[in-house]
Amino acid sequence: MTTSGERASSPSARNHDARRCLAVVLAAGEGTRMRSRRPKVLHEVAGRSMLGHVLATTTAAGAGEIAVVVGPDRDDVAAAAKKAIPAAEIHEQRERLGTAHAVLAARAAIARGAEDVIIAFGDTPLVTAETFRRLREALADGAAVAVLGFEAADPTGYGRLVRDGDALLAIREHKDASASERAITLCNGGVMALAGSTAIALLEAVGNSNAKGEYYLTDVVEIAHRRGLATRALTVSEDEIQGVNDRAQLAQAEASFQKRLRGAALAMGVTLVAPDTVFLAADTAFGTDVVVEPNVVFGPGVTIGDGAVIHAFSHIEGATVGAGASVGPFARLRPGADLGEGARVGNFVEIKAATLGAGAKVNHLTYIGDASVGAATNIGAGTITCNYDGFRKHRTTIGANAFIGSNSSLVAPVTVGDGAFVGSGSVITADVPADALALGRGRQAVKEGWVPLFRDKFGPKGDH
Amino acid sequence: MTTSGERASSPSARNHDARRCLAVVLAAGEGTRMRSRRPKVLHEVAGRSMLGHVLATTTAAGAGEIAVVVGPDRDDVAAAAKKAIPAAEIHEQRERLGTAHAVLAARAAIARGAEDVIIAFGDTPLVTAETFRRLREALADGAAVAVLGFEAADPTGYGRLVRDGDALLAIREHKDASASERAITLCNGGVMALAGSTAIALLEAVGNSNAKGEYYLTDVVEIAHRRGLATRALTVSEDEIQGVNDRAQLAQAEASFQKRLRGAALAMGVTLVAPDTVFLAADTAFGTDVVVEPNVVFGPGVTIGDGAVIHAFSHIEGATVGAGASVGPFARLRPGADLGEGARVGNFVEIKAATLGAGAKVNHLTYIGDASVGAATNIGAGTITCNYDGFRKHRTTIGANAFIGSNSSLVAPVTVGDGAFVGSGSVITADVPADALALGRGRQAVKEGWVPLFRDKFGPKGDH
Amino acid sequence: MTTSGERASSPSARNHDARRCLAVVLAAGEGTRMRSRRPKVLHEVAGRSMLGHVLATTTAAGAGEIAVVVGPDRDDVAAAAKKAIPAAEIHEQRERLGTAHAVLAARAAIARGAEDVIIAFGDTPLVTAETFRRLREALADGAAVAVLGFEAADPTGYGRLVRDGDALLAIREHKDASASERAITLCNGGVMALAGSTAIALLEAVGNSNAKGEYYLTDVVEIAHRRGLATRALTVSEDEIQGVNDRAQLAQAEASFQKRLRGAALAMGVTLVAPDTVFLAADTAFGTDVVVEPNVVFGPGVTIGDGAVIHAFSHIEGATVGAGASVGPFARLRPGADLGEGARVGNFVEIKAATLGAGAKVNHLTYIGDASVGAATNIGAGTITCNYDGFRKHRTTIGANAFIGSNSSLVAPVTVGDGAFVGSGSVITADVPADALALGRGRQAVKEGWVPLFRDKFGPKGDH
Repeated sequence: MTTSGERASSPSARNHDARRCLAVVLAAGEGTRMRSRRPKVLHEVAGRSMLGHVLATTTAAGAGEIAVVVGPDRDDVAAAAKKAIPAAEIHEQRERLGTAHAVLAARAAIARGAEDVIIAFGDTPLVTAETFRRLREALADGAAVAVLGFEAADPTGYGRLVRDGDALLAIREHKDASASERAITLCNGGVMALAGSTAIALLEAVGNSNAKGEYYLTDVVEIAHRRGLATRALTVSEDEIQGVNDRAQLAQAEASFQKRLRGAALAMGVTLVAPDTVFLAADTAFGTDVVVEPNVVFGPGVTIGDGAVIHAFSHIEGATVGAGASVGPFARLRPGADLGEGARVGNFVEIKAATLGAGAKVNHLTYIGDASVGAATNIGAGTITCNYDGFRKHRTTIGANAFIGSNSSLVAPVTVGDGAFVGSGSVITADVPADALALGRGRQAVKEGWVPLFRDKFGPKGDH
Repeated sequence: MTTSGERASSPSARNHDARRCLAVVLAAGEGTRMRSRRPKVLHEVAGRSMLGHVLATTTAAGAGEIAVVVGPDRDDVAAAAKKAIPAAEIHEQRERLGTAHAVLAARAAIARGAEDVIIAFGDTPLVTAETFRRLREALADGAAVAVLGFEAADPTGYGRLVRDGDALLAIREHKDASASERAITLCNGGVMALAGSTAIALLEAVGNSNAKGEYYLTDVVEIAHRRGLATRALTVSEDEIQGVNDRAQLAQAEASFQKRLRGAALAMGVTLVAPDTVFLAADTAFGTDVVVEPNVVFGPGVTIGDGAVIHAFSHIEGATVGAGASVGPFARLRPGADLGEGARVGNFVEIKAATLGAGAKVNHLTYIGDASVGAATNIGAGTITCNYDGFRKHRTTIGANAFIGSNSSLVAPVTVGDGAFVGSGSVITADVPADALALGRGRQAVKEGWVPLFRDKFGPKGDH
Repeated sequence: MTTSGERASSPSARNHDARRCLAVVLAAGEGTRMRSRRPKVLHEVAGRSMLGHVLATTTAAGAGEIAVVVGPDRDDVAAAAKKAIPAAEIHEQRERLGTAHAVLAARAAIARGAEDVIIAFGDTPLVTAETFRRLREALADGAAVAVLGFEAADPTGYGRLVRDGDALLAIREHKDASASERAITLCNGGVMALAGSTAIALLEAVGNSNAKGEYYLTDVVEIAHRRGLATRALTVSEDEIQGVNDRAQLAQAEASFQKRLRGAALAMGVTLVAPDTVFLAADTAFGTDVVVEPNVVFGPGVTIGDGAVIHAFSHIEGATVGAGASVGPFARLRPGADLGEGARVGNFVEIKAATLGAGAKVNHLTYIGDASVGAATNIGAGTITCNYDGFRKHRTTIGANAFIGSNSSLVAPVTVGDGAFVGSGSVITADVPADALALGRGRQAVKEGWVPLFRDKFGPKGDH
């Protein structure tokens, strides 16, 4: 029930399922147009780095081996790859001599004998697992090279996929294309797959007699075709293979990815009142008949139960919301928030690393952190669990059917028993037994006639 | 001054004004593509069920009688209809044998003799009252059948409206259309009106000799024309007659309706800084020179006075905002909030079932519920009206020109008199007389040199 | 590093740089279609009046003299102009006899001898300084009249720019245009520049023998050309010269301006996760590698340091955010908020006229106003600086490495020393020495077995 594209692959058996697969992920680009100190492939789409997306989708497509090609001294990229896929192997491309050269930086991995070799790009994060599977299926069907293409509205500037029947003859750069080739609208999407048995030979046959003196991966198509190997082009949407070179394209990739996630959520029966204003993560999981109002942001790790309502202006990350629960408006659920069935979290409330029992209510202006709150307990407005003493974090435990009066401070570690009451405005520093009333506040004193004297002294009421 | 389409009908007298009108609202569709436990027609657009929209607009178009056709055992749909229009009569369509069959489920209502019979659809919520009036006007001008059509950019798949001059000859389904008929771009919008005098005869003449064996309402056009009755097509925008079959179409209907409401608000002189980010209800009412900043959500029942400013990130429902008042950013007004002229409600403030007098200020981090606050009173940051004792709700009454210090708790039932002061951090459990100062907080104590001992004990400051 | 169009002018020397320039800003339109009590030119785009935009961009284009033409008795427009540009001179157009007549209301200013006279419109706020410079450059190159034109997708209704080679022969109104002239798609943008030496003579030559009996500024083109003076048309985007006549066009101008600001921010290396949901001011300034999440509103006067992150649902105005600082979600920074390097302001927090030292943390539900907070100090959830006593504002001073317990009230004027601790729920009315612990709260009391008695008395737990 998640909206993620990476799980969209068909469950039925396919010819490629039994084949060993290696993904070579090119992540060595400099990304200067990002104008960033951060490597380009570590910029994020939907809360996950672009590299992370590619590692996840190639893995989901069955790539049991992953080789990441990084630029010189890019320990940060290597570390991010290893964190996502501990078994990933890292290859350094010391000089930037073109894409075929970059793939050959992972020659040792290719030589290890996988039958399918996927060539993916760390800055092309939207290719789905299903698309990678289609490439593999083309290899399983006998192709030595399978390339992704897209129908371009305006193909000017793109490499064209020159075909003859099913065969892909060549990828022709725009500047090298003949007039008839320029009329082709099917353009090169960059991503491809190579049969493992011939991959290295093809890559090594690529030359660099061109203006830039670089080794272009696209040349393997023509080489393979000339050698009598089968070559294929698969068509995908332009949207899926958009690359990211600057922040505007990063924003465009985010928009495309969000559109995909929103469409999947709608299709599975979630009401998004205003889909364009809801930001989803790749792993956001929804039950049936969930309603999400406008302006809601989901970070990673969220599960929303059947019939829950997420009101406007909510921000939810790493949290579980039970069936029939209600969140917001203006609520923030942080990692570890776990709301029971029918629980309610209202406006200006933050929940962090805390469990709310079934039917518990935290409706207004409250911070519940490092705590557990029992079923049907009511937390009054302005309540704060004081979980930090300046040095350490402590837990607050509140039982079921309890009532915490408004503006109370619960100084952790502290336990409030089942059915207990805490009076409004109390500071609770010691445990409260079940069914007990606890008060911790000053006595009210009144000084009659005091205000006129004060007012006389300080003049007319100013503006606040 | 509301933005609602349902009130957009022209005030000038029309021929149909004196005629009795029945609306037959078809609400029996299964709606399986919604993937919902809720009946399709009860899903909401702009905070009101689709059925509710249709009942409201047909009523606004002068339908004094309403017959709702529901599916078998759809007590929930029947109840919703009766709640909106208590006099509505409910007819059950026991088998799903087509739209003409569905209309005939309400035969008893039609037989009662209304001159105009509107056929509306519970899943087509955007047809305006004015459009229904145009259909009725066509009947008043002599038509026996009047049908809504729209100019389709791509008519493929739609039924075509085949005309000869003014006369509508037939509605031809795409698959049955000739080549010349397929060239027609005016397509069937579904919604129609029938003259009461001939409605039943026409409906009974509809046959079911077609692939699905269903009785199609669209057939009445050709039947009427062959009988020499006048038939008419009226053109409306495609947007107005969009139907809702799944959640994506529900979101699209919401978007269209919001666009209409926003356009109406702009036209009447409201500044919407970013119209696409403002969500209105059908009954949102604005005075002149109101400014609404980006990201504001209006639920039903809101009235905003002249010159008021609604700042970004506000959520307003069932509330009245006086002239020149200021709300937000990050404010929530819940039902029963009533802000006087020039009142100010600031950030992270929730007002519920409470009146604020002219010029009263509630600027920060406050909950005012079940309360009245007098004119020019200032409520300090962090104030909470403690209106709930775990069992019952109580009221808080605060006079004019009073000052409630920050972080105070007002434990209801309690009254604070005119001009009274409450010291910061007080818990007020007893009434405060006018002009009195009330304090209810602990005395400050200081332990010098305590922190270094504590710090030594628990080590370096951790991360919070 | 700001995103403002008004600073986009090229730094390299241009021919016009040494020439004296007067801008005549027409601001006398009635603006009845705005349906507003406010004069049209004082309505705002991106938080600044349209007139303010025009004054800023003409000034940035080198107009050292500004003459604003206002309608009769429009002291409000005059005052706004003088406030923005104290040296601006105000001319009243007593009767509305057309645009040439309006410009001649400023005859005295023109007669003072500026070499370049820019004619700008107070309701056309998006023309950039660079475009005004291009007009001036055309004058410096010898033109007597230079006019802005745009390529219209549908030119119907617009005046056409009739050219012969480089020369602009005339501006022909749509209704007066011949068939061949109607085929012209370059349309009149209204804005123009006149060489000072011939401006008055050309303006005086404009007649009013037309249907409305008005003096049209557009006529100067044909007059100049007939006199053998050089005339030029410069092309800009339609977007840049859109005028504002109603609230929908105001919203459209806002959208265009925001798009421009967002594009500039992306180009300089800011990550806007969802650009369409971020609202910028003309002067918003960003460091490198700033990340702005969805739904953030920037008012005027904001500077964001390198690597800072602005989380979703934040509202920032007149504030400085230091390098590496983190703001939001749900944070509000008001004028005078100044966050040090690495400071953190979290959810439901308002900061106003307050300085946070490096690494200070204000993470939850807090109001800090008229205060300074030292480096590495931690402010607990629910803390309020009580800066207002009903008559006067006072300051709160908190040292470095201090710890303010949750739900505390700091009653200003008050000072908390370096390293001091304030216990949760305290009301602090007197200074706290460095390294001291201060408590100001009631003692906890517990009444065991109280709740069952209370519950028996008031029945089953109700709904909150």
